[in-house]
Amino acid sequence: MIIDCHGHYTTAPDALGIYRDQQKADLAGNPDHQAEKGTVQISDDELRESVEGAQLKLQRERGTDVTIFSPRASWMGHHVGNASTSQAWTEHCNDLIYRLTRLYPENFIGVAQLPQSPGASIDTSVRELVRTVEQLGFVGCNLNPDPTGGFFSGPPLGDRYWYPLYEKMCELEAPAMIHVSGACNTPYWQTTGSYYLAADTVAFMQMLQSDMFKDFPDLKLIIPHGGGAVPYHWGRFRGLADMLKLPPLNEAVMDNVFFDTCVYHQPGIDLLLDVIPTRNILFASEMVGAVRGIDPETGFYFDDTKRYVDQSAKIDAAKRQMIFEGNARAVFKRLESIIGPGN
Amino acid sequence: MIIDCHGHYTTAPDALGIYRDQQKADLAGNPDHQAEKGTVQISDDELRESVEGAQLKLQRERGTDVTIFSPRASWMGHHVGNASTSQAWTEHCNDLIYRLTRLYPENFIGVAQLPQSPGASIDTSVRELVRTVEQLGFVGCNLNPDPTGGFFSGPPLGDRYWYPLYEKMCELEAPAMIHVSGACNTPYWQTTGSYYLAADTVAFMQMLQSDMFKDFPDLKLIIPHGGGAVPYHWGRFRGLADMLKLPPLNEAVMDNVFFDTCVYHQPGIDLLLDVIPTRNILFASEMVGAVRGIDPETGFYFDDTKRYVDQSAKIDAAKRQMIFEGNARAVFKRLESIIGPGN
Repeated sequence: MIIDCHGHYTTAPDALGIYRDQQKADLAGNPDHQAEKGTVQISDDELRESVEGAQLKLQRERGTDVTIFSPRASWMGHHVGNASTSQAWTEHCNDLIYRLTRLYPENFIGVAQLPQSPGASIDTSVRELVRTVEQLGFVGCNLNPDPTGGFFSGPPLGDRYWYPLYEKMCELEAPAMIHVSGACNTPYWQTTGSYYLAADTVAFMQMLQSDMFKDFPDLKLIIPHGGGAVPYHWGRFRGLADMLKLPPLNEAVMDNVFFDTCVYHQPGIDLLLDVIPTRNILFASEMVGAVRGIDPETGFYFDDTKRYVDQSAKIDAAKRQMIFEGNARAVFKRLESIIGPGN
Repeated sequence: MIIDCHGHYTTAPDALGIYRDQQKADLAGNPDHQAEKGTVQISDDELRESVEGAQLKLQRERGTDVTIFSPRASWMGHHVGNASTSQAWTEHCNDLIYRLTRLYPENFIGVAQLPQSPGASIDTSVRELVRTVEQLGFVGCNLNPDPTGGFFSGPPLGDRYWYPLYEKMCELEAPAMIHVSGACNTPYWQTTGSYYLAADTVAFMQMLQSDMFKDFPDLKLIIPHGGGAVPYHWGRFRGLADMLKLPPLNEAVMDNVFFDTCVYHQPGIDLLLDVIPTRNILFASEMVGAVRGIDPETGFYFDDTKRYVDQSAKIDAAKRQMIFEGNARAVFKRLESIIGPGN
């Protein structure tokens, strides 16, 4: 079985965007406008149509089995409006993911967006995690390390601000992918090029400098996009751990931190598989996502990352199986109750 | 000849730090305090002592010849105080570099810090570039793309704000290394781990999305630290250029953008040399810099990057010579008047 641990619902019907536009219109006149959830009218047929020609088609073509699926990351927009805005929006986004997992239980497994908001308590995120895991059958969440949308002025991941969420994640055995949303301070940042990769890199450094894994030894966090700049600079980070008088990386963070394979060329995947311990790598493609075109150098989709993992000489069949399936099962412990035990 | 294009004066005598502390003390009571240059008393013997056991010793041990040398990057601190603070501080930092290039003309070639300040005109930076190039014999400058020190709220590199500086750089044939300073919003950022690499990555994306190289076809910019996350994600950036309807990377930016070799392990250097055109790579070590220890896996200094370039199977002797010398001469056109023509 091949489990893709990083897919977003980037192809939602127009009604979702219209709902969001109305939220923004309500806020334009009054930044404190208190959102009510209301409704987003999307039929099951529209849901099916939105994924049949996209995520499901690509799963079939590429030979992957199941995608751990979450709302569109760049649309989470935690910086928009206030806590009530984020709450209403997040519930709808998660509800749509739930409906897709019911329509396609073989293909999609839910991961939650959280109703974060700059300066707001993390308690609402804890509650949404509980709702989505216990009532909707989700297996984890996406945690935004910079809900300001590009200004990096909130608490770092090691701050106790996050601890109630970490506590609940451990209790529910629900890991988080550390994933920012769209940058609002454009054109300084470009969301999928610079912002995502910068956020991935800062997240790793924050973890390295924190006590969070001493306090939560069972916490599991996935850094997407191949770990940002981290594997390419693995020597720098090993050296910084030494300079900062921290334990070696393998002791400090590698029981808790995992990288996905969203790196869109063979040399990048080869480096990832070469320098990062195999048990810390989870297969993912981020499709349909940041880069949708065909690489003229190969004739295949840039984000068809299964090909790079299949073709890499850096790993053998046993390690490939860990990356495609075993590690995802170890990190997302709730998976087994949905897809059954592995071989 | 082996030219190291990225070295900082990280070992200055205490008098420099004391001067800076006094600046901060002056500002503590009055953020608008107007700095006067004053004096920093450091003798030639103190200057010699500060580099003999550090940069010069390492040059000899590692077999590099000359370092393109600039003030300590993490101390530029453009976010501290106001434009007058930055002006006085910058002049002293550059004056010390000049004195070192006079004491060791075979070993050090000067590159300028600029007196940037958030929200201030770029004109003072233009004037300091002219002073250091025309009067002090410097060959380029370090340009800080985020003088806020970690909040990323200023103009991106493609903004016309920077154009007077670009114009003067082209006129003087003086390239810039794009290099942030110390992050002030810690512990969110860690300066040498996450902040530098994030800034390198965003700089590349800003260039890719801009018209700056159409407007300044002769502009040469070096992205340090191996280009941040960019080479590791070269497929992503090639794909994003396609998604954003931009020309291919080699056409869009690779006549103007160069990466250094400050990547502190063999797999990272191998990837850099594999995916980036050789003409776009300049040898550098950043020593004495971010990572000063010895890699227990190799028994050699992490930042002894010459070893990785020497040992990489990705390049032949001709390409190695380009990386060690030829490309630096092509980018820093004023070098030849100082060190003579190459072979």
